[in-house]
Amino acid sequence: MAIQRITSPAAPEPPPERWSNCLLVDGVAYVSGMVARGAQGEMPTGMDEYEQAKAIFGKIKGLLEAAGGSMADVVKITVYVVNIKNNVKVWAARREFFKGNFPASTLVEVRALASPEILVEIEAIAHIGKGVR
Amino acid sequence: MAIQRITSPAAPEPPPERWSNCLLVDGVAYVSGMVARGAQGEMPTGMDEYEQAKAIFGKIKGLLEAAGGSMADVVKITVYVVNIKNNVKVWAARREFFKGNFPASTLVEVRALASPEILVEIEAIAHIGKGVR
Amino acid sequence: MAIQRITSPAAPEPPPERWSNCLLVDGVAYVSGMVARGAQGEMPTGMDEYEQAKAIFGKIKGLLEAAGGSMADVVKITVYVVNIKNNVKVWAARREFFKGNFPASTLVEVRALASPEILVEIEAIAHIGKGVR
Repeated sequence: MAIQRITSPAAPEPPPERWSNCLLVDGVAYVSGMVARGAQGEMPTGMDEYEQAKAIFGKIKGLLEAAGGSMADVVKITVYVVNIKNNVKVWAARREFFKGNFPASTLVEVRALASPEILVEIEAIAHIGKGVR
Repeated sequence: MAIQRITSPAAPEPPPERWSNCLLVDGVAYVSGMVARGAQGEMPTGMDEYEQAKAIFGKIKGLLEAAGGSMADVVKITVYVVNIKNNVKVWAARREFFKGNFPASTLVEVRALASPEILVEIEAIAHIGKGVR
Repeated sequence: MAIQRITSPAAPEPPPERWSNCLLVDGVAYVSGMVARGAQGEMPTGMDEYEQAKAIFGKIKGLLEAAGGSMADVVKITVYVVNIKNNVKVWAARREFFKGNFPASTLVEVRALASPEILVEIEAIAHIGKGVR
């Protein structure tokens, strides 16, 4: 079966010819680095890492559910932050979306994300339907 | 079937015992972070992000074709830049290599790549033969 | 078969509700970004990139063996360093753990890792049992 594009009302679509938020193939969902921009592209001004990560995980959850899966199916996340001293804020958000065996994770501090208001970007890989519910 | 190493004239091979440009296993091609160095290792001096990204996508295309696939099979790219303000230049190059559903993508600004002349590094995952042609 | 968490005495487990060092699903092992912290969480103070990378690859090896595989099964590694000028030190460690076709690799300099003593972080993807022995 060919690669399928997955969309969800939870995750605003980018303009054409940029990227897909999520592609599904061979039972594996690849989720783009997601940020906490709003439904109309609004910057996440004033939102800290906890709030941004929560918004991002909400988008990832919506995409995975649209793919027929759930957050339990996530096997790997990569978290990019601009201030690693606030990593505990990302962890706090993560605890609200996962239970049992958390995904394999990498978290690094990069120099910049797409705009200064964006403090966190998170990408994910999930094997749909393979999580322990 | 065991992991296969994929090579292409489009992508100069590294010295021994460094990395493989592309490995193929279970129908999945993993492409290393590629940069715009020339066939003899020349630095991409004077090439901007558009030109470097174009050279890089050309290498990835060559590798995927050598693996029996195409750019349509790419499900995820990760783009590392040293000046995220020039991300539109990478996007411009990307539009020349993809159509339809673009790959899931992450783009972050790191502090440095292998040498100061290198402005962009791009890695990719592709599920060979699964793209919509 | 559902996602399985893989553990090994070689790689100290994180506290609960943080991440899994390694998850295995559909024959693919996803290894978290590993660092050279000691068995009791000790910082790798005084260890250079070579020593840290060697400690990290030792952890990855232990996890993959616990998953029924080996370092030959690694198809992709991503290496995050804080001083890319020392990348040859990481390469030196890598040569002690791989032979034949090295994994596809990406190596970038980020601004910071989890603490200042940590100079290297490495994540890996392996297709268990698919390496050329």
